[in-house]
Amino acid sequence: MKTFNDTLSRLQRLLPKERLLIDPAHLAAYESDGLTAFAVTPRAVVVAETPQDVIETIRICSDSGIPFVARGSGTSLSGGSLPHADGIVIALNRLNKILELDPQARIAVVQPGTINLAVSAAAHPHGLQFAPDPSSGQVCTIGGNVAFNAGGAHCLKYGMTANHVLGIKAVTADGNIIELGNSSTESTGPDLTGLFCGSEGLFGIALEITLRLVPRPECFHTVFASYDSLEKAGDTVSEIIASRLLPGALEIMDKLAIEAAEAAVGAGYPLGSEAVLIVELEGTRSQVEHDKQRLAGLLEKSGADVIRIAGDDEERAKIWKGRKSAFSAVGRLSPDFIVQDGVVPRRLLGKALREIQDIAKRHKVRVANVFHAGDGNLHPLIMYDGRIEGALEQGEACAAQIVRMCTTMGGSITGEHGVGMEKRAFLPDMYSKDDIDLMQRVRRGFDPQEISNRGKMFPDGEAPSLSLYGLHPLEKAGVISRQ
Amino acid sequence: MKTFNDTLSRLQRLLPKERLLIDPAHLAAYESDGLTAFAVTPRAVVVAETPQDVIETIRICSDSGIPFVARGSGTSLSGGSLPHADGIVIALNRLNKILELDPQARIAVVQPGTINLAVSAAAHPHGLQFAPDPSSGQVCTIGGNVAFNAGGAHCLKYGMTANHVLGIKAVTADGNIIELGNSSTESTGPDLTGLFCGSEGLFGIALEITLRLVPRPECFHTVFASYDSLEKAGDTVSEIIASRLLPGALEIMDKLAIEAAEAAVGAGYPLGSEAVLIVELEGTRSQVEHDKQRLAGLLEKSGADVIRIAGDDEERAKIWKGRKSAFSAVGRLSPDFIVQDGVVPRRLLGKALREIQDIAKRHKVRVANVFHAGDGNLHPLIMYDGRIEGALEQGEACAAQIVRMCTTMGGSITGEHGVGMEKRAFLPDMYSKDDIDLMQRVRRGFDPQEISNRGKMFPDGEAPSLSLYGLHPLEKAGVISRQ
Repeated sequence: MKTFNDTLSRLQRLLPKERLLIDPAHLAAYESDGLTAFAVTPRAVVVAETPQDVIETIRICSDSGIPFVARGSGTSLSGGSLPHADGIVIALNRLNKILELDPQARIAVVQPGTINLAVSAAAHPHGLQFAPDPSSGQVCTIGGNVAFNAGGAHCLKYGMTANHVLGIKAVTADGNIIELGNSSTESTGPDLTGLFCGSEGLFGIALEITLRLVPRPECFHTVFASYDSLEKAGDTVSEIIASRLLPGALEIMDKLAIEAAEAAVGAGYPLGSEAVLIVELEGTRSQVEHDKQRLAGLLEKSGADVIRIAGDDEERAKIWKGRKSAFSAVGRLSPDFIVQDGVVPRRLLGKALREIQDIAKRHKVRVANVFHAGDGNLHPLIMYDGRIEGALEQGEACAAQIVRMCTTMGGSITGEHGVGMEKRAFLPDMYSKDDIDLMQRVRRGFDPQEISNRGKMFPDGEAPSLSLYGLHPLEKAGVISRQ
Repeated sequence: MKTFNDTLSRLQRLLPKERLLIDPAHLAAYESDGLTAFAVTPRAVVVAETPQDVIETIRICSDSGIPFVARGSGTSLSGGSLPHADGIVIALNRLNKILELDPQARIAVVQPGTINLAVSAAAHPHGLQFAPDPSSGQVCTIGGNVAFNAGGAHCLKYGMTANHVLGIKAVTADGNIIELGNSSTESTGPDLTGLFCGSEGLFGIALEITLRLVPRPECFHTVFASYDSLEKAGDTVSEIIASRLLPGALEIMDKLAIEAAEAAVGAGYPLGSEAVLIVELEGTRSQVEHDKQRLAGLLEKSGADVIRIAGDDEERAKIWKGRKSAFSAVGRLSPDFIVQDGVVPRRLLGKALREIQDIAKRHKVRVANVFHAGDGNLHPLIMYDGRIEGALEQGEACAAQIVRMCTTMGGSITGEHGVGMEKRAFLPDMYSKDDIDLMQRVRRGFDPQEISNRGKMFPDGEAPSLSLYGLHPLEKAGVISRQ
């Protein structure tokens, strides 16, 4: 491949050897992201240390039409930062500076490799925080949060990442430097900043991101309630919303998820319950004081078996630990699992959960449910044993049914994980051909050659099916074979 | 013009005579919008009655490359719905149905010609409201709110229109029907709904808009304070924000604006004050109860001359009446005025106001200031007497200096009125050539022929200067002549 060697030579002139990885042993670390069922070896990895490294690398790729993908901590659950087999990975972890933090203007300007929780940590002394709180906050990066418009347990109250990004300086896939938005909350013209959020790396790479900071709540009131049916928990969520309380978070876990979390971290969830509801009020002391009376009244009438109120920060942390570790805890129940994050209209939550149970039964797989109930964002964890032939396909078929159920109900195929590599085939369930064509045309406004994260999001991307695309890690290890 | 006659014949087959206006006497009503200094006669006006009328009209325009512009109530202050001299106006006022209102899901689906306040009126019995509240809410339409991403006095707390639009069904300028977003608050892929908001009619025409409704506040606490200097009022705003109070609205009016409002509606503002500050707390009863103590403490120390608290709804309405009628009230002080709506970083408010006074002095014009202080959104009302030769140009030069001051301070050329026809020349002050090229490319993704609201927003639009473009209404009336 002459073209690629030319590109490589140009990159070699740009970067020292230790920051231009081409050795297969080094490349292996970049083969997969959080969606480990996929693995693709890139041609090279550029470890960027400065914005100029990113810009020059993209310009070199653009000159030769070589695809590239940005990668932060590689936590994408939709395969969003999976490499392209003919392309380059641009690793952004070292671009992790907080360039500015202005407590009066309540903004922070950060580089894309900055860790999500590092922003809140820096804002903490000023009584401020960065609101989006994905479960992976301790490792995931702001660049990834922007690319996938990340949410988190508290997005019921605060909205998604797009609601907290005021401006973006980026290099587009054709090598131009663009500045979208500014530190004002009022934008001029079409909201290109908002457009960039959720663009899944298809437009280019953000170099500087201006984030909105919000005051940290003065206090929290975290309540945990268990139920003998999922419906009761779901109905309670509807009651809470209808009462006009606006909790910071409203989470439900089902029996399997409870058992897993309990076994893993001992959060004190009552075993045997069919559902656990976590409600967290937050705000000023007087507001929380007032709202908690209303909440108590609602919960008393909700038919809960156990109601527990966190008495202090430690108890609050314990309740959340169970919820936040649910994903990894499910690993105790099953060697492998697939997470979906479809959304259903809130009022259909109960129906959706019953249907998921039916789908699981039909596919003979176990599904644990953990979800952001307040905004109808499901997280079914579909368990399978990758060592058993056909089990992955069975799990995938089940996941596909659940995704299709969400769109049939008028919801969305993804609440916060993104389409990425994983859900490309489902995009036409949500959007018409005209809609998708329009997205493509908008994308080509940023990336005429379609080199930035090529093959993702769109249904006609290359290598559409899992089995054609890459080997499962267990296949590569020789444990399973599907060929 | 063969082309246009062909187009007209096709439109005649589509529409009854009374809904296809071509008579100059009928067209006159569509020559100007809220920016009355501009006036352009369109070739024809289509009065749409159904979405299909809009779709077919756009397809006919697209076939022949004839430009069109959507018009609701024609309240744009930036000339956003000004006709194109070779084009068609598509009037949307009759598309004013509220198609769906779901109190549980807290959404309303409306047609683009629905009046802003009609949405809140329909939501009222369910304890809900549509939050964006432009001063023109009694007449302006949701379609226009979307096109210009309208704000209002309460956008400090609630954000702009884009924050309250969940989905848009639209016809693009090339005649395709697209559906962006959905009723979920969590979107998939790049935020095209958000992109459409603020696109100033350059992408096509929205046919159905899904709005988010929010609970109406249980109660309000409206306080009015007067000061002997603008700085004191500005500093008080900074203190309030720093204290972590989040008022629904934080407005300042200066001496001239106070005098005008007082003369017009007798709101009870103390004459002779240099500045009036309006602070409105809102929320649940207990929250407002708590916050008002804090606010009282701050205001006591703020050096206010008079502090007045609205004791009931009537007193609240009176305070707001003065503010909301300030624009028209200024008409009492001057036969003509230009309104700008630039934004400056909040911490530079004091500096900006001093500078505006200097600019006004240098240009020998009077400027009244009314502004959304909480978010730094200025509304200088630049007064001139259009009957005096050169006065309009003098006013415009003054307005231009104020806009440039905003961008120099790191702000924005427009907070909520949009770029439209008026501020096209200033776009390059905010955006680089690469940024503007990108916007053009994105626009062409929706409108390859650039027929939808042609000539607006971009600096290289046709007919760049006011005097070249159209006649001032007073010129047309023969009162003034600039030629």
